[in-house]
Amino acid sequence: MKKVHVNASCEYDVLIGKNILEDSGKLIGEIFKKGKTAIISDDKVYSIYGETVKNSLCENGFSVETFVFPNGEKSKNISTYTKILEFLAEIGLTRSDFIVALGGGVTGDMVGFAAASYLRGIKFVQIPTTFLAAIDSSVGGKTGVNLDAGKNLVGAFHQPSLVICDTDTFKTLDEKTFADGTAEAIKYGMIKEPELLEKLSGDFDIEEVVEICVKIKRDIVKVDEFEGGVRKLLNFGHTIGHAVEKCSGYSITHGHGVAIGMSIITKATEEFGICDSGMSKSLDGLLEKCGLPSKCPYTADELYKVALSDKKRSGGFITVVLPKVWGECILNTITVEKLLEYIKKGI
Amino acid sequence: MKKVHVNASCEYDVLIGKNILEDSGKLIGEIFKKGKTAIISDDKVYSIYGETVKNSLCENGFSVETFVFPNGEKSKNISTYTKILEFLAEIGLTRSDFIVALGGGVTGDMVGFAAASYLRGIKFVQIPTTFLAAIDSSVGGKTGVNLDAGKNLVGAFHQPSLVICDTDTFKTLDEKTFADGTAEAIKYGMIKEPELLEKLSGDFDIEEVVEICVKIKRDIVKVDEFEGGVRKLLNFGHTIGHAVEKCSGYSITHGHGVAIGMSIITKATEEFGICDSGMSKSLDGLLEKCGLPSKCPYTADELYKVALSDKKRSGGFITVVLPKVWGECILNTITVEKLLEYIKKGI
Repeated sequence: MKKVHVNASCEYDVLIGKNILEDSGKLIGEIFKKGKTAIISDDKVYSIYGETVKNSLCENGFSVETFVFPNGEKSKNISTYTKILEFLAEIGLTRSDFIVALGGGVTGDMVGFAAASYLRGIKFVQIPTTFLAAIDSSVGGKTGVNLDAGKNLVGAFHQPSLVICDTDTFKTLDEKTFADGTAEAIKYGMIKEPELLEKLSGDFDIEEVVEICVKIKRDIVKVDEFEGGVRKLLNFGHTIGHAVEKCSGYSITHGHGVAIGMSIITKATEEFGICDSGMSKSLDGLLEKCGLPSKCPYTADELYKVALSDKKRSGGFITVVLPKVWGECILNTITVEKLLEYIKKGI
Repeated sequence: MKKVHVNASCEYDVLIGKNILEDSGKLIGEIFKKGKTAIISDDKVYSIYGETVKNSLCENGFSVETFVFPNGEKSKNISTYTKILEFLAEIGLTRSDFIVALGGGVTGDMVGFAAASYLRGIKFVQIPTTFLAAIDSSVGGKTGVNLDAGKNLVGAFHQPSLVICDTDTFKTLDEKTFADGTAEAIKYGMIKEPELLEKLSGDFDIEEVVEICVKIKRDIVKVDEFEGGVRKLLNFGHTIGHAVEKCSGYSITHGHGVAIGMSIITKATEEFGICDSGMSKSLDGLLEKCGLPSKCPYTADELYKVALSDKKRSGGFITVVLPKVWGECILNTITVEKLLEYIKKGI
């Protein structure tokens, strides 16, 4: 088992290993005193892994309640969030208790926000069961739910107390869902570690890749937990990626949207002469190899209109992340009109 | 105009004065650059003061949108909170913009939580229009909304960027609503400043009393913003007070509930020999003088059952605030069973 120690506004460990779900109760018992807890999960994930986690917690002296909601992005809204809160109140969870978020990014984000706001904040444990959640949403403390107007428009910064990542859970992911994680891993390579891109182009050791990605995120979050500056690098491909997702009514998943977003912004950056020529073609090749798209099914105007509601916009400006060389990106604050030019160039 | 500077996780001023609402745009313009803002208020308050604040903001170069919801505690729920968030998204408010909470505690708490969570946090200005909100919820950064299961069970710590308190707005409060504020002022006297109790027993200068109360709260919040310890003193009378409110279906208002709560806990503390004899009778006398109740219309068992869902409970324990001498209270962590004894003694 690998351990990555995160030192943000609170300190916690990210534990990465094979078949560690059945030890989750023991691992959690090392940081929380025995008491009441609630596992919050979606129906799909809970049916596969719920009992394992619940039994492990019970065996280790915890009293466990469970709340299960329908799987999928459509559940990531204030209605489900409210049901979670009412459930926590109903079972009488107090500030000395904690919750367990078992599932992918939808679960981690939403349960994280519930933990951030229930009684103005209680502790929680992340148990990500997707490659994407393991390297992205489960670490760093960003939580949120969607509004009708857009994704993650409401949320909080709230760090977990522990992250338990059992990479064996990724075996039950379909290829497309696994590729969502690969897209984010490629992002980490693009912003920080070119060697990671080489690894991802072949057969890779999943534990190693998760560890590399979590360490990159950890190092960035450490210096900029609340996204005042350098943390924005993690948004590479995301402004346009989110717009792609939204245009599709979320039938295009996050990683696939980010893949298209990275492709568009890299092509545009190359056209503007900011990065080396050839990067766009190579990136598109890697995306294809990893089963990810680079072509966008929407027009520049369609994407732009949606991108304007991006929460990273500040008045008439938005900060975009542009590739410079392999493993290095820069932040550039541009007018929203300039963003349209980027999209047009890159599409 | 009096100015109290608060130095919490962020610094801000509380401005207290007569007839300063019409200068609100100018005062806000001193800390925010001209841009978009949204005034969120209830229908009752907005009909009296909305135009004054809006015009002042417009005259000072701000572009102003408004959202108005029905007056009253019944609006302080996740449904109204969601409507506020969707409204903010709809008008395209960004992280460089801010919101204005115009109204009493319901508005300040709920808009504060919307500000804390919209885009994971944007800035906001508190313009309290009740005596209670001016000395209680508008300062210190506690925000929240009610769940079906109880009051303020969801929320966040989020400090305002400015508080503008026009004491002339209290003139439109009915006697009962004004007395809600007096109850909290009595609380400040009980925990920190016996001279304040003397002032409150006669005709008092409202600006001076608001200033004294805000300074007491400021000093406490400075050393314990997130209620790890000494801030709990501000909960004097509140655990039982909240239970009284809840038992009444919130027909008994916050200050009146707190008055009853202070009376019960003081009587119990006296019976247990922790505070001087005579305090209970004197406190009840002051409450009566100020138009506040001390008698509880519910049984000890009714209150206890409801008090168990108090968010300050940690497992089987709860911290209560007990008067010791005039102007000094102590924190005591007791079992929930012991709480029942206190209620029985004090009722």
